[in-house]
Amino acid sequence: MPARGLYTEAARLRRLSWLRSVTRSALDSLQHTRLDADKLTGNIEGLVGAVEIPVGVAGPLLFRGTNVQGEVYAPMATTEGALVSSATRGALAVTMAGGADTHVVSQAMTRAPVFAFSRLAGAGRFASAVLQHLGDLRTAVRQVSGHAVLLSIEPVVLGRTVHLRFRYTTGDAAGQNMTTACTWHACQWILEQSHLVADDELESFMIEGNTSGDKKASAQAVAEGRGIRVAADCLLPTGVVERVLRTTPDELVTGYQHITAGAVHSGVLGSHANTANIVAAIFAATGQDIACVHESGVGQFILERTPEGVYASMTLPGLALGTVGGGTHLPTQHELLEMMGCTGQGSAARLAEIIAGFALALDLSTVSAAVSGHFASAHERLGRNRPPRRDDAEDQVPTVTELVES
Amino acid sequence: MPARGLYTEAARLRRLSWLRSVTRSALDSLQHTRLDADKLTGNIEGLVGAVEIPVGVAGPLLFRGTNVQGEVYAPMATTEGALVSSATRGALAVTMAGGADTHVVSQAMTRAPVFAFSRLAGAGRFASAVLQHLGDLRTAVRQVSGHAVLLSIEPVVLGRTVHLRFRYTTGDAAGQNMTTACTWHACQWILEQSHLVADDELESFMIEGNTSGDKKASAQAVAEGRGIRVAADCLLPTGVVERVLRTTPDELVTGYQHITAGAVHSGVLGSHANTANIVAAIFAATGQDIACVHESGVGQFILERTPEGVYASMTLPGLALGTVGGGTHLPTQHELLEMMGCTGQGSAARLAEIIAGFALALDLSTVSAAVSGHFASAHERLGRNRPPRRDDAEDQVPTVTELVES
Amino acid sequence: MPARGLYTEAARLRRLSWLRSVTRSALDSLQHTRLDADKLTGNIEGLVGAVEIPVGVAGPLLFRGTNVQGEVYAPMATTEGALVSSATRGALAVTMAGGADTHVVSQAMTRAPVFAFSRLAGAGRFASAVLQHLGDLRTAVRQVSGHAVLLSIEPVVLGRTVHLRFRYTTGDAAGQNMTTACTWHACQWILEQSHLVADDELESFMIEGNTSGDKKASAQAVAEGRGIRVAADCLLPTGVVERVLRTTPDELVTGYQHITAGAVHSGVLGSHANTANIVAAIFAATGQDIACVHESGVGQFILERTPEGVYASMTLPGLALGTVGGGTHLPTQHELLEMMGCTGQGSAARLAEIIAGFALALDLSTVSAAVSGHFASAHERLGRNRPPRRDDAEDQVPTVTELVES
Amino acid sequence: MPARGLYTEAARLRRLSWLRSVTRSALDSLQHTRLDADKLTGNIEGLVGAVEIPVGVAGPLLFRGTNVQGEVYAPMATTEGALVSSATRGALAVTMAGGADTHVVSQAMTRAPVFAFSRLAGAGRFASAVLQHLGDLRTAVRQVSGHAVLLSIEPVVLGRTVHLRFRYTTGDAAGQNMTTACTWHACQWILEQSHLVADDELESFMIEGNTSGDKKASAQAVAEGRGIRVAADCLLPTGVVERVLRTTPDELVTGYQHITAGAVHSGVLGSHANTANIVAAIFAATGQDIACVHESGVGQFILERTPEGVYASMTLPGLALGTVGGGTHLPTQHELLEMMGCTGQGSAARLAEIIAGFALALDLSTVSAAVSGHFASAHERLGRNRPPRRDDAEDQVPTVTELVES
Repeated sequence: MPARGLYTEAARLRRLSWLRSVTRSALDSLQHTRLDADKLTGNIEGLVGAVEIPVGVAGPLLFRGTNVQGEVYAPMATTEGALVSSATRGALAVTMAGGADTHVVSQAMTRAPVFAFSRLAGAGRFASAVLQHLGDLRTAVRQVSGHAVLLSIEPVVLGRTVHLRFRYTTGDAAGQNMTTACTWHACQWILEQSHLVADDELESFMIEGNTSGDKKASAQAVAEGRGIRVAADCLLPTGVVERVLRTTPDELVTGYQHITAGAVHSGVLGSHANTANIVAAIFAATGQDIACVHESGVGQFILERTPEGVYASMTLPGLALGTVGGGTHLPTQHELLEMMGCTGQGSAARLAEIIAGFALALDLSTVSAAVSGHFASAHERLGRNRPPRRDDAEDQVPTVTELVES
Repeated sequence: MPARGLYTEAARLRRLSWLRSVTRSALDSLQHTRLDADKLTGNIEGLVGAVEIPVGVAGPLLFRGTNVQGEVYAPMATTEGALVSSATRGALAVTMAGGADTHVVSQAMTRAPVFAFSRLAGAGRFASAVLQHLGDLRTAVRQVSGHAVLLSIEPVVLGRTVHLRFRYTTGDAAGQNMTTACTWHACQWILEQSHLVADDELESFMIEGNTSGDKKASAQAVAEGRGIRVAADCLLPTGVVERVLRTTPDELVTGYQHITAGAVHSGVLGSHANTANIVAAIFAATGQDIACVHESGVGQFILERTPEGVYASMTLPGLALGTVGGGTHLPTQHELLEMMGCTGQGSAARLAEIIAGFALALDLSTVSAAVSGHFASAHERLGRNRPPRRDDAEDQVPTVTELVES
Repeated sequence: MPARGLYTEAARLRRLSWLRSVTRSALDSLQHTRLDADKLTGNIEGLVGAVEIPVGVAGPLLFRGTNVQGEVYAPMATTEGALVSSATRGALAVTMAGGADTHVVSQAMTRAPVFAFSRLAGAGRFASAVLQHLGDLRTAVRQVSGHAVLLSIEPVVLGRTVHLRFRYTTGDAAGQNMTTACTWHACQWILEQSHLVADDELESFMIEGNTSGDKKASAQAVAEGRGIRVAADCLLPTGVVERVLRTTPDELVTGYQHITAGAVHSGVLGSHANTANIVAAIFAATGQDIACVHESGVGQFILERTPEGVYASMTLPGLALGTVGGGTHLPTQHELLEMMGCTGQGSAARLAEIIAGFALALDLSTVSAAVSGHFASAHERLGRNRPPRRDDAEDQVPTVTELVES
Repeated sequence: MPARGLYTEAARLRRLSWLRSVTRSALDSLQHTRLDADKLTGNIEGLVGAVEIPVGVAGPLLFRGTNVQGEVYAPMATTEGALVSSATRGALAVTMAGGADTHVVSQAMTRAPVFAFSRLAGAGRFASAVLQHLGDLRTAVRQVSGHAVLLSIEPVVLGRTVHLRFRYTTGDAAGQNMTTACTWHACQWILEQSHLVADDELESFMIEGNTSGDKKASAQAVAEGRGIRVAADCLLPTGVVERVLRTTPDELVTGYQHITAGAVHSGVLGSHANTANIVAAIFAATGQDIACVHESGVGQFILERTPEGVYASMTLPGLALGTVGGGTHLPTQHELLEMMGCTGQGSAARLAEIIAGFALALDLSTVSAAVSGHFASAHERLGRNRPPRRDDAEDQVPTVTELVES
């Protein structure tokens, strides 16, 4: 590939031209981009252009949270029809009911190197001894980053290895790279301490051994949280359920019980209807690492019948997100963060609460849609409005939401 | 919001103008988009613009698969630095070693409605009786879609409910919406059969009860597959490991053992280093539903020492992807599919094999990077090249790959 | 050890005498046993005596199930105080409410050998080809066992290996050993077919590769069932909840919601209060393999508010149990099976339904106990009846049930 | 049932007589028991007799552990043929190789009550505020038990509830009941603090909400440990593998890779061959709560090729066991504990290490048996020694171990 390592528009166009040649593709739509190649040094190599993901706006949703108050519109980058409208319907219901409480419960980014010893005994000694050096490790960390603060280290002995789980706060950054650098330096300090890692005992070292949960969907991260753990809740009176969600509290709770039972049966991480839709759409719109949708798409949705209607909450155990770093500086992504007031100190927590609120709204709307198609009436409505027909293409097929709302 | 339900450029600009007003944001960069609002009817509501995700190209990677042969360049839409270069390094190693075998093992999209009865006995009767009607249900399905083929139905009795797991092939479409419509119609047929659902026994019906795994990361989907199950493998001789991956087969296998042990300990779904990076980057570049990264980011990476070097394989249990439908028709996304030869019949399988090959390549590169920073030499290299310093911003902090490759 | 391989009382006593000598222990209580050493050839090697587990009787519980009708008393071998009384309380409630419906949903014992090939391509070919030989494999199986019937084989391609999941019915035996022998012979047949396993492609073979779930607690077994999948349910009117369970339907449902949310959060397999207590106590009393409590202790407990009280169900996804084979022929164990009518054809299904019914009863009682200790009143009762004191031994400390029932 | 609440031999016989009458069963073998009904007040209600589980002795196994050194014979109560002999074979291999290192990594018993508030905001306030009172809670705990020491409390906010995870050390007791009583009293203290639980905010309280993992197999307990977390390891030279385990290091490692891949694929908790066999057999022999086999049967078995042979380790993440309390005082059970030196202070840790050592030995033997039946030679051996025949009864069918060792 030509122009390797160059971050200029000219280099991009040279690569694009070369790519057209080797793949014999026109690639017309890659010609133009509003992105500035000069500013993508930390984001991508081999830049040839950009894809556009359409952005819609859902809301408003009224927040009464710890880090966000008032009505918020959320940008959603998606190609899944009905997502924006369904989230908006849910947001309307929550807003009419007085809004969503939201709260960041914890924030901690994890990084977990491995130290392998010749035998279990050495691993056991290391695990005990290293705990005495939290202060030294904090000092090492401070030399690398002014943003990362080392909260704790937890040694996990697995046979003759010790996975050392570092937990940090990282300000408003998601912090995966920051904590990697910090942990690397902290480990260098450890590796220099002969009383911790006697030469004849340490066999190998590795910067990450998969107990941090980075880019992985794991039960440990659900239980313990990774990144920002955040929750939202609301109380919906019967009238709102009926008018906006077009179902009843009892039907809604029945539907909730079914999806919870199904999730438990299937070994789902968490229990929800479609949290990942909101996480993906807002992550893509705001420059987050899209790969983190894998680990961050988990939700725990809870619905309870109350005398007046229903109580609903949504807990997102681990959002790996930030408002600085990654793709958050890209022009549109940054503007969309600004639009939600998610720039400046404390804005990562605000963004997390906004996501939790909309994830709550969407799950309420989706479960309502899925149950309000009660078999007796829905069949009639369906038959009247949507006569059976053969589809010509996937994208003409109605979604669940469309079907039962039609 | 103004212009609700209108899919025109004028309507988009009216909404954008309104959004600027209500949020008091300039939103300059949303003004222009190459997307055609008229063509987004199935993709988004409330369109106001688009975000651009930068696209780099990784590869070439030599394939010797069932559905793809020859060298392929893969477009990756990402903002995570080092991803494209690391995937390219892995692809170089695999290609030098003779390429990647790839194979689609199975394809099945699932949709699972719930029928709730008054008691367990009724649920048990229904579960038995409905199995006799597979032919009738196939007929009902054919009336809705010419693409979806009903493979099987599996009743799951949970207390007094029956979750009825429909499994379909869906051609080259991901098929979530197609199978929803088909299943809905099949359920209408069921609901009309009084011998199956006597009025006094059926209490509620719901189009999806979370045993399909749609938009969920679940252990069941890992074990059983959802969407396309695909695998890739390669044999890397020692020389390639040393020259390209800059480690040794023994070190590489040791690193693999550490991350596998860590994954088991942490309850990770699957076991891999960073499969989700490839899934997310190619999904975003090719118009897939980004929310499906949550369920599709799972991988099972296997590495074994051989006399000549290492054997490596990557199994992706469930890619919910398509080459028609969703966002695949968007101009750049479609061109990038074309660039990989992923249009036309059978192209979904081809795309799945390409993703599996690059996921294999990336995990090889990432684990190599993580271990080749062996403590003795890496510290020296690190100290020489990257003096400890305070970071100014998250995006200046080096990644794992950069650190150990520097 | 002396007398190796001899199954006589004299040999037992010689070993016991030797054991006393090498361990310098009196071991007085091992001197006598009612077991007949001659009959333990398939059960244990190196027999030196027996431990006694105390047996209590819970019930009666009224069944209206597919395989069991009428009142049943269940023997429970346990050392956990309050278990028998709590199960009895639950059984009383269910019985007063009209009894428990029970139903065996499916029965299948699994065994899963591994075939490893040189590359993925060979694995893929084998996985396709072997499916054509289900008839041949059934023939091979019939030559080994008159009880095992091969239902299906499911190939799982993992990199270059194929795990071949054999599923059998095994009559009234748990069937782990029977299916091992059958699968072994079936695999010998496969290994002789050169068109299936060309010599240059097959690299290794192993009788079990952990996809059967044998002696493992796995999400796959929860979703798919292993052994007998069985469910029980009941409808409890408000009066029964109040008088017998000493709580209210609303409190009970609230408690249920808390434990379900807790189970989801913690990555519990299934979702229940203490199913394993019933499984272990009845398994131990009836000669089951106690190690199977690990895989069989999973339950999915569901509770719903109804206008008249509560609906409750318990699904046990995989009971690895039998009424012939294993320890079921031991004298007391056999008598206790007889006492429940669990000998003869179809008795394994009957035993499974009895376990499901009592597991339902116990979870109802336990959740009631945990919530009925409502903070206001329970504190007073606790203070009056159980003044704080230092414990002298663990076994004087009250259980949850005792505490809140006192 | 007659004689309710009476713990005497006469009462037992009255109940037995009544049971014979109501069930029309002879129940001859229940007539006699060596157990003393007077001493079972904390263990069982409704005592009618006892079942005998046969006990064999495996070993010797040489330990070089933190809490156990020297050769140990382990009693195993089981009805699964080949278990004792296979464990003994593994123990011989480990002993010949110099013995097993063993180490208790941590000990903590968990209990997790739930506090439910009217809204998330109240839950969040409580979660923060309660952490300030660790000292007060420790004081409350000390008033209840002289054995339990409160290590930490961890609030888990789930919607409007807070699960408060108490972690304790409990001396040599398993401690489930002890920690229940302590937690109950600690919660009473909390419930009296109006600044923590304002009357208008707290809606319900429950002594356990399933985040402790009690009697549950959960991913959280695997990751975090519950009860005693313990590990064992050994280095086996090639000669020992060949002579005792009758396979080769390479074959053994290949087999290990297959079962690890299978475990990951199937969503197994941990990754092992048959840890639950050892846990169940020693738990039953020593008076542990057999129901805890469900949660305690998890193991993580690791095998690595070394230049001289193989390295093997076994980590048991959570053994809920004790050497006082429960059934440990029963005469035979107590003698068997004494035989292993497992009475007195620190003996719970010793027992845990013994279990880990034997679990390591058994998994080594089992995987060796499963792979050493390599298809070429095993078929011949099998054909010669065990001609295919129809089985007469389940218990005549050979086990995996027998098959491949024959």
